[in-house]
Amino acid sequence: MTKDSVSLAVVRRLPRYYRHLQELLHEGVTRISSRLLAERLGLTASQIRQDLNCFGGFGQQGYGYNVEYLHREIGGILGLHKGLTAVLIGMGNMGHALCNNFDFPWAGVKLIGVFDNADHVVGTQAGALTVQHIDNLENFVDEHRPEVAILTLPRQAASAMAGRLTALPSIRGLWNFTNADLQQVHNAFSVEYVNFTDSLMTLCYRVSEGQL
Amino acid sequence: MTKDSVSLAVVRRLPRYYRHLQELLHEGVTRISSRLLAERLGLTASQIRQDLNCFGGFGQQGYGYNVEYLHREIGGILGLHKGLTAVLIGMGNMGHALCNNFDFPWAGVKLIGVFDNADHVVGTQAGALTVQHIDNLENFVDEHRPEVAILTLPRQAASAMAGRLTALPSIRGLWNFTNADLQQVHNAFSVEYVNFTDSLMTLCYRVSEGQL
Repeated sequence: MTKDSVSLAVVRRLPRYYRHLQELLHEGVTRISSRLLAERLGLTASQIRQDLNCFGGFGQQGYGYNVEYLHREIGGILGLHKGLTAVLIGMGNMGHALCNNFDFPWAGVKLIGVFDNADHVVGTQAGALTVQHIDNLENFVDEHRPEVAILTLPRQAASAMAGRLTALPSIRGLWNFTNADLQQVHNAFSVEYVNFTDSLMTLCYRVSEGQL
Repeated sequence: MTKDSVSLAVVRRLPRYYRHLQELLHEGVTRISSRLLAERLGLTASQIRQDLNCFGGFGQQGYGYNVEYLHREIGGILGLHKGLTAVLIGMGNMGHALCNNFDFPWAGVKLIGVFDNADHVVGTQAGALTVQHIDNLENFVDEHRPEVAILTLPRQAASAMAGRLTALPSIRGLWNFTNADLQQVHNAFSVEYVNFTDSLMTLCYRVSEGQL
């Protein structure tokens, strides 16, 4: 295991492996060659072997991969069973979309608190949770020690909130929906951007060029 | 130019180049070496040269890149100035979040129509647009010829809607927020997934492993 040196590019492919292995499990597939797994993922077999070798392999020459084992191992590498918890800050449309429609448990995360600063929003329901006032954030985080903060507040408020979160040592990762560039300023956190623009631009290229 | 053979992995990096070049323009930077551009993007200089060589280069030995020229060229490659138009289907929280907060023009796309099937939603405002009944979709698309359909409807309705859209030849790309796997079934379209789960799983790994 040489996890420390694994590049983020490899890590970013792991959720895709995990998803496809989950589907294979559902389809009753017990083992799969790297060639077939590669076809399914749109990667090359050598890419897959390289990626998985970063974590020690998992395959056997001539046998391929044991689907259940690989699925479990990748889930373990991703930390899906560590019981990570998260708070969400900003109950606008994006916050509501996540609370109501996103499958947090499947991503290995439990959403334990949601916050907003608007009086007419505080006290309303968001999925199974009741929206709390943002002034309660520090007390709640001190007590419950979530590792992740989800930023769905307006972009112009994102940087100040990230600054405020640096005082809360349990928070180690920001899931950032605001488009504000937070990594360079707040390097105490891992920041994961959900960047809609990049995705739509990529689609435009494919549409323009007639690429599937 | 060898656009046809450009891999999707390269294309997916172009919006990031574009974004950073835009910032450099705002900062008044007129030229930049591939080494400095690489640092800023978190890539290697040779990766950048390789990526841009797919489209014919743009750099000059010993000079680096002209920021304004490169920004314009990449915008052109991405098709940002082609006047692509889009319709959005499904005015739940995600649909509202996009209509109210997403900067479509910056991504080179004009949102021209939004649709829902719920009577209490039809006729309400979504940003500058009025929500139309989904029964009006075919007439509207026939008349206005949008290239992109944005799917923010419930996951279980996504595949049927994609099927319905295959009858509308102007639609060539789906921007898919539903998590439903549409590419394999409907290969008449380019499908771009906005996959929140992969992003959160990647963050969990980074948090678990103490990686920034």
